[in-house]
Amino acid sequence: MDQKPNLPAAKDKTLFTPGPLTTSLSVKQAMLHDAGSWHFEFNDLVRRIREQLLALAGVSREIGFEAVLMQGTGTFGVESVLATVIPPTGKLLVLSNGAYGERMAQMTSHLRIPATVLRSPENQTPNLDNLRRELASDSAITHVGVIHCETTTGILNPIVPIGEIVKNAARVFIVDAMSSFGGMPIDFKAAGIDFLISSANKCLEGVPGFSFVIARRDLLLASEGFARSLSLDLLGQLKGFEKNGQFRYTPPTHSVLAFEQALRELEDEGGITARARRYAANHRTLVEGMNRLGFQVYLDPSVQSYIITSFHFPADPTFSFAELYRRLADKGFIIYPGKISQADTFRIASIGRIFESDIRALLAAIGESISEMGLQMAGGKR
Amino acid sequence: MDQKPNLPAAKDKTLFTPGPLTTSLSVKQAMLHDAGSWHFEFNDLVRRIREQLLALAGVSREIGFEAVLMQGTGTFGVESVLATVIPPTGKLLVLSNGAYGERMAQMTSHLRIPATVLRSPENQTPNLDNLRRELASDSAITHVGVIHCETTTGILNPIVPIGEIVKNAARVFIVDAMSSFGGMPIDFKAAGIDFLISSANKCLEGVPGFSFVIARRDLLLASEGFARSLSLDLLGQLKGFEKNGQFRYTPPTHSVLAFEQALRELEDEGGITARARRYAANHRTLVEGMNRLGFQVYLDPSVQSYIITSFHFPADPTFSFAELYRRLADKGFIIYPGKISQADTFRIASIGRIFESDIRALLAAIGESISEMGLQMAGGKR
Repeated sequence: MDQKPNLPAAKDKTLFTPGPLTTSLSVKQAMLHDAGSWHFEFNDLVRRIREQLLALAGVSREIGFEAVLMQGTGTFGVESVLATVIPPTGKLLVLSNGAYGERMAQMTSHLRIPATVLRSPENQTPNLDNLRRELASDSAITHVGVIHCETTTGILNPIVPIGEIVKNAARVFIVDAMSSFGGMPIDFKAAGIDFLISSANKCLEGVPGFSFVIARRDLLLASEGFARSLSLDLLGQLKGFEKNGQFRYTPPTHSVLAFEQALRELEDEGGITARARRYAANHRTLVEGMNRLGFQVYLDPSVQSYIITSFHFPADPTFSFAELYRRLADKGFIIYPGKISQADTFRIASIGRIFESDIRALLAAIGESISEMGLQMAGGKR
Repeated sequence: MDQKPNLPAAKDKTLFTPGPLTTSLSVKQAMLHDAGSWHFEFNDLVRRIREQLLALAGVSREIGFEAVLMQGTGTFGVESVLATVIPPTGKLLVLSNGAYGERMAQMTSHLRIPATVLRSPENQTPNLDNLRRELASDSAITHVGVIHCETTTGILNPIVPIGEIVKNAARVFIVDAMSSFGGMPIDFKAAGIDFLISSANKCLEGVPGFSFVIARRDLLLASEGFARSLSLDLLGQLKGFEKNGQFRYTPPTHSVLAFEQALRELEDEGGITARARRYAANHRTLVEGMNRLGFQVYLDPSVQSYIITSFHFPADPTFSFAELYRRLADKGFIIYPGKISQADTFRIASIGRIFESDIRALLAAIGESISEMGLQMAGGKR
């Protein structure tokens, strides 16, 4: 067996990625315990976390919402909603302007759920007229799904106007808020959200292991018998919590312990508003610094989120992203490759336990790296 | 927000449960890092873990096997196999003598896969003649699934004679070895295993977050287009690993780091044989001590595994399991409630980072607790 020490050997690299992201040491230290997954203390913790998630979402059990945790990554959470709440006679309309919208569409094909995909270019928000028209013309459509912050590009889709159209057309509205929930205020009421999915290891700054769904209780209860998977049966999961406080199947106990600490640290920071301010400041510092270095942002500022930012490759034909990536990794910084089909870009996220000082350190390392690489940065002010 | 410190406040209770179980501090400390899930160091670690799992299973890529990790709990891993490898025209025969066999059957109903369930009593291994007859008479059956160690009772199902029948009948053999893999030698060849599922947080003594499948590569590759779930698409997952070394969707990075350390500690202990010896000694000490206290084992010794043991409730009508459980928890020990439908039992597992000294400490606490409860233990030698 390999005798190498655990990676990373020395200091952890700072992650400028949209999750898993850099978390606080105290969040990770919360995992230095083994909790009995059936023990009442653990059940109590799960119950408190579910309450806290509802509070963070600005909804409550009184107005008909539930928070349900689901093992696995965020994708599992999204699929648990589609697999559970769309009736056998239902049809999903997916608004797609990136890889995560496409992933939702892919789920429907695996789940054998009829679907229509309304695509818009990766740098544009969905066309609302098309949405209105499609809902008016296709009465088979029962549910509409959209990605809030599409991390393919970093574009922020306007869930309030979209949700208004969906609600006016009396359809169920499903929002994948994986990379936005906890990092920006979301108005459930204004957007008419019925199901919102996010994950422990995004803006709530926990570690991976589970996702969660903020769900309209009546719609979930009405899904009896629809579930196309046992593991991903969201109604079954709710019933399990309500029956005895337990996950139906083994919970990621350590991730749950870390999450409790992460929620405490969100509270200490001043809640979602304060966290949103920090992330927005990170993003601003990043964009200003990258512009100074001669990099251009891919998206128009009017649709750009402060969660993650796509930058065009420099015009210099000698540029190699792999080389920039490696040089930054050697300096202790992990950035993200691009995921856009129509342009050569790379991505830098502004979320996680990182601050403007981390962004400045990253910018300095990028500046050094492009010097080392001898890149000509047109428009740069260096 | 609740200001209570993370549970447990002081010393962790010892878990005599079949997972999540008590892990070493060093395994948990491996989680004090944030790894970039797309970074080559992490991909390299995932690759090494997949190699090590094949070696532990005593198989190799050369003889046609692959190890595929799957996010979520062990149930997700089992469902990923059923959802992916059974063709639309296929049918599963489930051998069930407990809750986990029934869970496999439940999956087929959610996945809309035709199935036959051959049930045997919870204290008996499957009837081999019935299996032989069923396979001979129903040519629609393409796959057979069984639980190796059925933790409902702790019964060990004889996968070698079962596998011989399955192979003679030219069916695909799926073994849920959740609570046995790593804790006892498993002969893939003798049992003709095509797919074996286990989990990070069982006898390999990692933390929860993912399961894994040791899979016949040709059978998995032949499953193109069958997957009934995107998240649980085992072939898609294999292709992801082979394409770029990555999980298709966010991996539980911290659980993976812990698992690497857990595998190192298994090696340090002397591999599966040495671990099996420790677990068997734990079980022996447990049963001897419990007998001395007047408790009776539920299963016949000939079918009892050393993984987990079911004990009958004492005959004393004043016995309350809830009270025993609470008293033991107060003393720092977590045991497991029963899961058997036909008898009142509770369960104690012998696996995890626990030793005979921990078993003796538990036995002392049980002795104290039954004294405190004033129980009359018929047949006890106290």
